[in-house]
Amino acid sequence: MATDQASPDFTLDAFHRGRFWLVQPKGAGHRAGMDAMMLAAAVPSDFSGRLVDFGAGAGAAGLAVAARCAAAQVVLVENSAEMVAFAERTVTHPENGHLRDRISVLTADVSLSGKARTAAGLGDGAFDFAIMNPPFNAGHDRVTPDQLKRGAHVMPDKLFELWLRSAAAVVKPRGGVAIIARPQSIGELLVALAGRFGKLEIVPIHPRPDAAAIRILVRGTRGSRAGLSLMPPLFLHAAGSDRFTAAADDINNGRASLFGD
Amino acid sequence: MATDQASPDFTLDAFHRGRFWLVQPKGAGHRAGMDAMMLAAAVPSDFSGRLVDFGAGAGAAGLAVAARCAAAQVVLVENSAEMVAFAERTVTHPENGHLRDRISVLTADVSLSGKARTAAGLGDGAFDFAIMNPPFNAGHDRVTPDQLKRGAHVMPDKLFELWLRSAAAVVKPRGGVAIIARPQSIGELLVALAGRFGKLEIVPIHPRPDAAAIRILVRGTRGSRAGLSLMPPLFLHAAGSDRFTAAADDINNGRASLFGD
Repeated sequence: MATDQASPDFTLDAFHRGRFWLVQPKGAGHRAGMDAMMLAAAVPSDFSGRLVDFGAGAGAAGLAVAARCAAAQVVLVENSAEMVAFAERTVTHPENGHLRDRISVLTADVSLSGKARTAAGLGDGAFDFAIMNPPFNAGHDRVTPDQLKRGAHVMPDKLFELWLRSAAAVVKPRGGVAIIARPQSIGELLVALAGRFGKLEIVPIHPRPDAAAIRILVRGTRGSRAGLSLMPPLFLHAAGSDRFTAAADDINNGRASLFGD
Repeated sequence: MATDQASPDFTLDAFHRGRFWLVQPKGAGHRAGMDAMMLAAAVPSDFSGRLVDFGAGAGAAGLAVAARCAAAQVVLVENSAEMVAFAERTVTHPENGHLRDRISVLTADVSLSGKARTAAGLGDGAFDFAIMNPPFNAGHDRVTPDQLKRGAHVMPDKLFELWLRSAAAVVKPRGGVAIIARPQSIGELLVALAGRFGKLEIVPIHPRPDAAAIRILVRGTRGSRAGLSLMPPLFLHAAGSDRFTAAADDINNGRASLFGD
């Protein structure tokens, strides 16, 4: 990501070495970065079909999928009117013209259920893949030290439960899901996935080989009864280095999937 | 581990390069190996106090703790009369004489609760640390392909729940617990730990850096409300090599704790 241009209220940031650009609010709210790129990297490069990005913000993860996966049709779902406006500006920006006909924006609350969800535009079985970076991870929703002290079982508003309930409804049988989250959330996440998505693959993401993971990426298959795998970790930097590893650089720049597919 | 001597019904196997020996049934039941050494390695080297080894078998993990942690008093708890006999033979073997006064054997069913558990010799708050390698992992209890197909949520007999209920009862506040398990069990394990042990530290154990984890080691603190950490993984071998990594060799031979403490 590189900021190329700025105005009083937004920035225009390049991703994938300029292959797509993001219009984001300046200095306020959650700004997209590596989390979105790693989430997008969970989608196989040969993915073909309709993908929904829950809580898409300005569209970083969804556009990263569209940029790498030439056969992906992407729907960005966002509930914040402010962020929907930025997503619209992103999608219609001339620099993203080559992706324009494969991306759309939907204003909807991902936590709706049943008829209300369908009426909001999120129909049953309408997608082949769902990706999500729940706002629990976001800067504007960072847990406080007191919340952290309450331990691994903090889960405000049952966000994972509600979002994964919706994901299970809108993703077709054998379709995919991918979530990026904090390692502390692994317990709640597995409980919310249980009975909905199987064949779970978890990739721990560590800043360096000798440091604890800062994120987990979980991928699963709708309705699969296959077991869970704890995959080889991704190290963002080598020990003692500030440079990205080749694997992290490939993912950050849309040259590879996180799972090598 | 090296087998030095054999009879028709047992083997005598060296661990920690001969620092202690194990009397085990020959060719039948679960034979101790790296799982037990890795479990023992979860205990800090400067641990001082009473440690209980749930489902101790012939005593491999408990003796490995006693051999590395000079201030540890170890109680091996085993319910199988056959394995209790092997544990007794292990503890009283002349080669283990230097550990003899810090190890005892208790015949008890770890899954008991309340007064029955106390009457069996597992009193409330009687220990500073509990370690366990639930038989779910053992060769004689290996899940079938059909069971594996049922996915991550298989948990025969609620073993984790029963054993961790007992661990929470017998371990003092701020005492420790360590469990070695298959990665597929991480969900059930976290559910069974919830509200009992916090400050959880999970170490994924991979055969090689490019292969999925084959075990997880989870350590926790009784009553702590601190969050979960996904620690740097342990790789048993380098890519393309059959030799143990230095880290795995240190753990296998009782020269280091898995957490560097």
